[in-house]
Amino acid sequence: MRYELYYWPEIQGRGEFVRLALEEAGADYVDVARRRGYGVAAMMKFIGGEGAARPPYAPPFLKAGKLVIAQSALILHYLGPRLRLVPRSEADRLWAHQLQLTVTDLVKEIHDTHHPISSGLYYEDQRAAAKRYTKEFWRVRAPKLLGYFESVLEKARGPYVFGRKVSYVDLSLFQIVQGLRYAFPKRMKRFEKKVPRLVKLHDAVAERPRMAAYLQSDRRIPFNEWGIFRAYRELDA
Amino acid sequence: MRYELYYWPEIQGRGEFVRLALEEAGADYVDVARRRGYGVAAMMKFIGGEGAARPPYAPPFLKAGKLVIAQSALILHYLGPRLRLVPRSEADRLWAHQLQLTVTDLVKEIHDTHHPISSGLYYEDQRAAAKRYTKEFWRVRAPKLLGYFESVLEKARGPYVFGRKVSYVDLSLFQIVQGLRYAFPKRMKRFEKKVPRLVKLHDAVAERPRMAAYLQSDRRIPFNEWGIFRAYRELDA
Repeated sequence: MRYELYYWPEIQGRGEFVRLALEEAGADYVDVARRRGYGVAAMMKFIGGEGAARPPYAPPFLKAGKLVIAQSALILHYLGPRLRLVPRSEADRLWAHQLQLTVTDLVKEIHDTHHPISSGLYYEDQRAAAKRYTKEFWRVRAPKLLGYFESVLEKARGPYVFGRKVSYVDLSLFQIVQGLRYAFPKRMKRFEKKVPRLVKLHDAVAERPRMAAYLQSDRRIPFNEWGIFRAYRELDA
Repeated sequence: MRYELYYWPEIQGRGEFVRLALEEAGADYVDVARRRGYGVAAMMKFIGGEGAARPPYAPPFLKAGKLVIAQSALILHYLGPRLRLVPRSEADRLWAHQLQLTVTDLVKEIHDTHHPISSGLYYEDQRAAAKRYTKEFWRVRAPKLLGYFESVLEKARGPYVFGRKVSYVDLSLFQIVQGLRYAFPKRMKRFEKKVPRLVKLHDAVAERPRMAAYLQSDRRIPFNEWGIFRAYRELDA
C-alpha cells in the first residue's frame, strides 16, 4: 500500500513523528504537501473539505486507501502493526499507544515553552510568559515527563521501550532528544546526565541504517523557528 | 467484567470522561480511589509502582482484568466496543478516537485558561497570563475547536457525531458544554448561539435515562475550583 502523508511542507512539526516511522520501515509513501506545484492546496482541500464527510481537524493526517486518519499518535497506532513497529499483542499495542499519547502531551508542553499564551500571537508578544513557562518546564515538567520515560526504559532493560526491538515510540523519543538539543543546547547538556537511558536510546536510533540515511537526506527538514522545537537563546539559560 | 477506575476522588477532571461512558453503559465498575479507607493510596501504588512493569504516567487509568490502561482517550477507545458506545467498524472506531483526541486537546486548552504558565504554580501567581490566555482562547481557539465539532455534527445530521446512535464522544462533548457553562457562564451564553448543534447534543445526552440518573446521584462530583473547569469570575468577561 502506498501511504499519503499530509503535513506542512516547511517544518518537521508533528508530522515528523509519522515520517520517522515510515522511513524506519522503508514504507512506500508520498509526502503530499511537499510535492512541487501541488502541495499545500491539496492538503487544505481535506481540512476545509466541504466534500469530505469526516474532515480531519488539522494536519498531520494519513491517507491509507479510503481511510483518512488524523492525530499523529493515532496514525502511529494504526501504522504500528502494518510497519512492524510495535509488537503484535493487544497489551503491547495499548502500552505503545499510551506511551505515545504521553509523548503527545510532552510535545504540546515543549511547544508552549515559546507560545504559552496563544499560538495565534507572535513569540515576541508573549516573551515574558515564555520565559516563565520555560523555567517551570525545566524545573518541574521535563524532569517528571522525561524521568517517566527513563524509568520505562529502565524497567524494559533498553535500549528501547520494548527492550531489544525498536518501536515507533522509540523513534518519537529520539526526536524529542534531538529537538530539545536543538532548542535548549545548554539546558540539555546539563539535563542529559539525569536521563542516560534516553540518551542511549537516541544514539541507538541514530545508528540504525535507515534512520542514518534519512537524517542525511533532504527528506529530513532542518529544525527551524516555525516548528515545535525553536532555538531562542534567551530561553536557554 | 468488573472494571476498576482509578482517578482523584475529589474532582471530575479527566476521569469524568471515562465515568460518563461507564455510567451510560450501566457497566459494572468500582471507582477505586473514592472508596472510604482505601482510596488514593491504592492508586498511588500503581503510579510509583516499583512492582509494576508498566506503570501509568498519571491517572486516570483503568484496570480491566490484567490490563492497566492510562490516558482517558485510550481508555475510551478500549471501552468503546465493549460498552457498545462506538460503532463496530474499524473506520468508525478510528474516527471516534480521532475526535476524542481532539477533545483531549481542547480539554488541555481549557485547563490552561487558568493555568497557562504551570500547573505547579497557584492560579493567583499566573492571573495576568490567565486573563490573556482566556481572551485568546475565546477569540480564536473556542470558535475553531468547538466550530469543528459543530461542523462534524452538521455533516452527521445529529444529534450525535454518528447520527442517531450515541457514542462515548458525545458524552465527552456533553461534558465540555457543561464544564464551559460552569466556568464561563457569561461567555458561554453568548457563544452558544454559534454552536446550536452542540447545545442540542448536550440536551439529548442530559435526557438519556442513565445520564439523568447519574447526574442526580452523588457519584457525580460537583464542579469545583480544583478541576479542569473552574469558575473564576474575572476570567468570564
